[in-house]
Amino acid sequence: MIVVMKPGATTEQVQHVVDVVRDYGLKEHVIFGTDRTVVACIGDKRMVDKGAIENAPMVERVVPILAPYKMASTEVKKDRTIVKIGPEGFPIGGNRIGMIAGPCAVEGREHIIRLAEQVKAAGGVGLRGGAFKPRTSPYSFQGHGVEGLKMLAEARDRTGLAIVTEVVGVDTLPAVAEYADVLQVGARNMQHYPLLEAVGKVDKPVLLKRGITATLQEFLLAAEYIIDAGNQQVILCERGVRTFEKYVRNTLTLSMVPALKAETHLPVVVDPSHGTGHAYMVPAMCRASVAAGADGLLVEVHDDPEHAMSDGAQSITPQALQEEMPVLKRIAEAVGRSM
Amino acid sequence: MIVVMKPGATTEQVQHVVDVVRDYGLKEHVIFGTDRTVVACIGDKRMVDKGAIENAPMVERVVPILAPYKMASTEVKKDRTIVKIGPEGFPIGGNRIGMIAGPCAVEGREHIIRLAEQVKAAGGVGLRGGAFKPRTSPYSFQGHGVEGLKMLAEARDRTGLAIVTEVVGVDTLPAVAEYADVLQVGARNMQHYPLLEAVGKVDKPVLLKRGITATLQEFLLAAEYIIDAGNQQVILCERGVRTFEKYVRNTLTLSMVPALKAETHLPVVVDPSHGTGHAYMVPAMCRASVAAGADGLLVEVHDDPEHAMSDGAQSITPQALQEEMPVLKRIAEAVGRSM
Amino acid sequence: MIVVMKPGATTEQVQHVVDVVRDYGLKEHVIFGTDRTVVACIGDKRMVDKGAIENAPMVERVVPILAPYKMASTEVKKDRTIVKIGPEGFPIGGNRIGMIAGPCAVEGREHIIRLAEQVKAAGGVGLRGGAFKPRTSPYSFQGHGVEGLKMLAEARDRTGLAIVTEVVGVDTLPAVAEYADVLQVGARNMQHYPLLEAVGKVDKPVLLKRGITATLQEFLLAAEYIIDAGNQQVILCERGVRTFEKYVRNTLTLSMVPALKAETHLPVVVDPSHGTGHAYMVPAMCRASVAAGADGLLVEVHDDPEHAMSDGAQSITPQALQEEMPVLKRIAEAVGRSM
Amino acid sequence: MIVVMKPGATTEQVQHVVDVVRDYGLKEHVIFGTDRTVVACIGDKRMVDKGAIENAPMVERVVPILAPYKMASTEVKKDRTIVKIGPEGFPIGGNRIGMIAGPCAVEGREHIIRLAEQVKAAGGVGLRGGAFKPRTSPYSFQGHGVEGLKMLAEARDRTGLAIVTEVVGVDTLPAVAEYADVLQVGARNMQHYPLLEAVGKVDKPVLLKRGITATLQEFLLAAEYIIDAGNQQVILCERGVRTFEKYVRNTLTLSMVPALKAETHLPVVVDPSHGTGHAYMVPAMCRASVAAGADGLLVEVHDDPEHAMSDGAQSITPQALQEEMPVLKRIAEAVGRSM
Repeated sequence: MIVVMKPGATTEQVQHVVDVVRDYGLKEHVIFGTDRTVVACIGDKRMVDKGAIENAPMVERVVPILAPYKMASTEVKKDRTIVKIGPEGFPIGGNRIGMIAGPCAVEGREHIIRLAEQVKAAGGVGLRGGAFKPRTSPYSFQGHGVEGLKMLAEARDRTGLAIVTEVVGVDTLPAVAEYADVLQVGARNMQHYPLLEAVGKVDKPVLLKRGITATLQEFLLAAEYIIDAGNQQVILCERGVRTFEKYVRNTLTLSMVPALKAETHLPVVVDPSHGTGHAYMVPAMCRASVAAGADGLLVEVHDDPEHAMSDGAQSITPQALQEEMPVLKRIAEAVGRSM
Repeated sequence: MIVVMKPGATTEQVQHVVDVVRDYGLKEHVIFGTDRTVVACIGDKRMVDKGAIENAPMVERVVPILAPYKMASTEVKKDRTIVKIGPEGFPIGGNRIGMIAGPCAVEGREHIIRLAEQVKAAGGVGLRGGAFKPRTSPYSFQGHGVEGLKMLAEARDRTGLAIVTEVVGVDTLPAVAEYADVLQVGARNMQHYPLLEAVGKVDKPVLLKRGITATLQEFLLAAEYIIDAGNQQVILCERGVRTFEKYVRNTLTLSMVPALKAETHLPVVVDPSHGTGHAYMVPAMCRASVAAGADGLLVEVHDDPEHAMSDGAQSITPQALQEEMPVLKRIAEAVGRSM
Repeated sequence: MIVVMKPGATTEQVQHVVDVVRDYGLKEHVIFGTDRTVVACIGDKRMVDKGAIENAPMVERVVPILAPYKMASTEVKKDRTIVKIGPEGFPIGGNRIGMIAGPCAVEGREHIIRLAEQVKAAGGVGLRGGAFKPRTSPYSFQGHGVEGLKMLAEARDRTGLAIVTEVVGVDTLPAVAEYADVLQVGARNMQHYPLLEAVGKVDKPVLLKRGITATLQEFLLAAEYIIDAGNQQVILCERGVRTFEKYVRNTLTLSMVPALKAETHLPVVVDPSHGTGHAYMVPAMCRASVAAGADGLLVEVHDDPEHAMSDGAQSITPQALQEEMPVLKRIAEAVGRSM
Repeated sequence: MIVVMKPGATTEQVQHVVDVVRDYGLKEHVIFGTDRTVVACIGDKRMVDKGAIENAPMVERVVPILAPYKMASTEVKKDRTIVKIGPEGFPIGGNRIGMIAGPCAVEGREHIIRLAEQVKAAGGVGLRGGAFKPRTSPYSFQGHGVEGLKMLAEARDRTGLAIVTEVVGVDTLPAVAEYADVLQVGARNMQHYPLLEAVGKVDKPVLLKRGITATLQEFLLAAEYIIDAGNQQVILCERGVRTFEKYVRNTLTLSMVPALKAETHLPVVVDPSHGTGHAYMVPAMCRASVAAGADGLLVEVHDDPEHAMSDGAQSITPQALQEEMPVLKRIAEAVGRSM
């Protein structure tokens, strides 16, 4: 932590900062520059509120030096984490890239089974689909709940696909954990800490979606909550952020893939469906994700998008998925991986 | 809802859209323009996923016409909602503007009582302070929990101030509801629907903070969840949004005040502390909020900001609050209100 | 400038950074922390590209300490700059707040004279209006050019108002400088450096609008270009930034007013018309601007907004302006100023 | 254009809108919905300021239907534009993907020639490098000007590479046009209309960079300015946008590639150097760009990034470029193209 003093700070004011720094159990190091005096602080600063020191007289600002996350960091754990999902234990984070596909919401038993079979046939390793749906409007379809979970479980039994489904609250977590293979924490809940702590106590992989305007640091701190609670099987999912651009639903930020690979040992998958909001862009963004180094893809698939109960605009058909897979495989090979 | 066809759409493709629209129970109205054909849809579209129709062949986009919120809207309820808070029933949303102040977190019994007395003396009507703290990092101070709530209750008993405190999850809601006068739903939880539904079933006023990148529409839909669950005592709180600007913690968007006043009958308060992140800007932004038409202010106050357990950088002192109040009163009078 | 090394950096790698730092003519100061080594650099760093050093092996990042602007800064010039505008030399930046109003574009001779008289009657000190219009679309009305400038000059002669009008390029600057009292540099041109340098060589006040996503630092660096070229009469104009919110045209960031007042000695005016895009919000945002400490307002006024040649949606009528002025005066008095 | 009336609009108010619409030479079509009345307008609306109509009484908002650009649109020109660049006429926009690489700024004669030879050896088709540099700070290195242009020309003569270099203003355009093969209009100048019009009158290809927060629509309108002035050889360049994320310099929005391919016939290249700001991310983003369908890449290369005169942090070495090319070629083949 570096405390930058305003120009004209007196010796007493610098000394006051030194005293505050020592109060927090840190060791100081004062540097007198040509225009500014700075106080470098040495020690474990994790419990210090940097904002507090910013309120001392003549302090201009406080610059943190350390990343605030620890267990999610490549500094602490050098080898990459591989998270095994589903009945067949597909390893997310290894050399092979995993395709997870399915409808936004589970709409019915036969429907989800049919889609699961198509995803499997296309080469998928996981089935996505919401039984509990967090919807922006209270008037939108909210999902089939536990019945939907049972349909997903049946689809798994028939296909061997790993079930990835969202958990929307602490109260419905036990039900979701009973049926799901991977607990998805949605973007809206990325900073709902009681839920992060709760999934941290379950022995199931967690797919954590990046919040709609979460920074890389906040994203990794959310993962840190889960790891800190005891669960190291965390898969990060980039799904786009909100910007000024109205043409797309979200702005898919693929540079997060190499960034996260540098900062954390956790595997990273990409959701190009939410990341764009337009079915026609999904194949191009699947390709780009694989090329950028993603460990997996999360794609919305529906066989009748015009009548989908949610997210129709961004769902591709199973046929489109099947046609896309060979292209993705060739790209995976081009970057030294398989799919 | 207006469905815009791409140029070159055939009669069959337009007819297909008409069929889909009718499937959803709507009545269509086709208009052939010079460059585009559009299909205007008439009827209650609340349950239609506009995205689904966007997937029909040769559809360019679908433009919703109606706002998706209803009970929060000035269309449905013309008279303004007044929410009475605290033992003295101060009316938020009436002519008088209410000052709610206090520390970010409850730090100790004597401390919170002393601050409450100072807030009261300055002319405040509510005491803010967190007992449960949602923190970005698992290593930050997480609040005193139920003990903190009891301290707040004691501060209320001594001063008559309304207690405004955050509820961070469904599981701790009963405890918070027992002690608090106003249940604060924080920005990170604005779209945590289980919590919105749960506070919607409690007979206490709710102060709903705008999410860090929530649109006006999403903000009002979050309020709609609470009202839809049965609780009409909703106070909206503008607290700034995230932008590219690093100089401030958040960008306080005061134009939301007149915008919300036009769109909803609910009262609107402003939090200039989170809205800026810098204590030195808080007085100017309090003034601007009152001038813009806010029904109340939520201000962080601390008597030793350099040692505050959180949000020290944005807390003003009780003395600064006391000095600011007469200015705010004069501005309130300038716009035909009182404080 | 602080160079933060990655954990595990060797003594040789730190020494290499020290060498690079010395190459740039700086003095180094190495601090060995618990987790990181940092190299603090002392000296004049204005000509150093911090990015270059970031490319040295095992450098994590480089944190600049000094603000990159100098002459615009309160550090270099303590007393506030007052810019006198128009035939009557109204002082922008003093105790009295100036209202500058007028249509988006000059539409015709009689029209602009009539509006000027109404602005004068309402208590305005300046007349805004574009003769050269930078328009997003090549098919939009581009302004009356030099003829428009002559109309503005005539309006000035009749009313004594200061003429504030936009200069869109270096080639048309001489014409604009001949007729205008204040040269407006628009948001789109805030980083068009040839224009900044050119207006820096003219002896006329410059009203510099903040770019649509310019940071505070970039805004002041743009002002620095003008001052560096020789012109100290710079008025900064906050006009809102682009965010995700679609409800407003721009998000007016009033916290920029106290922020700029702290960082620079230059006067600051606010444009609530572009800052919101909706006429109905303009009065509330005028009030908030005055309360926040603005030195002036720039407001779009039109007597027939439904037929305005541009920006009709955000123009208020002269009547609305006249009714608003007494309220603004009362707020000015409430904060110890006049209007 | 669809005019949406507020609920409760009277027949007279709707008729008033109809009158205004007819004043603008449009034909109206009134639809009475369950909650809203809308007035659909038919005709050429390019010269109508939609904002003006928004000011009519009881109008809620005006929704444009047509894209405002025309000649840049795939609607008007179905076949894709191919822009031939440099002495060898490399076709940007065809099946083969072009690599354009070089330093941020031309730093010296031998340096640029050496780099050009390395770019050529790696398989590049163009040499980028700034002779006139638009710099955020007046104290940064501003480029070697005409001398730099001559060095670039010499590098072209030796290698056959197309010279891509920035034109920063109308006054220096003749000099740049004399030496350059492709006139680069930088992000800061994307809406400097006098420059767009000026390059529109030159018979040289233009590489137009997207503004730092330009929307897709504004980007294409900027291209429209150039085409409208007579120059159809426009190459669009995606270079990232500004968001809240501080980890990267810009957020590279690769979904713009399929979006632009759908909306315009112009070729699209990507600049992953500015798009990320970090050399280590550049290879991954080059790969993703090719996979997403880009027609070319613009990459900053420097053989001594630690001492680069600008943009050192985001420059890769010629060696890194050479190693990356075979991977990019394999990805190009995977998507049915060559490189």
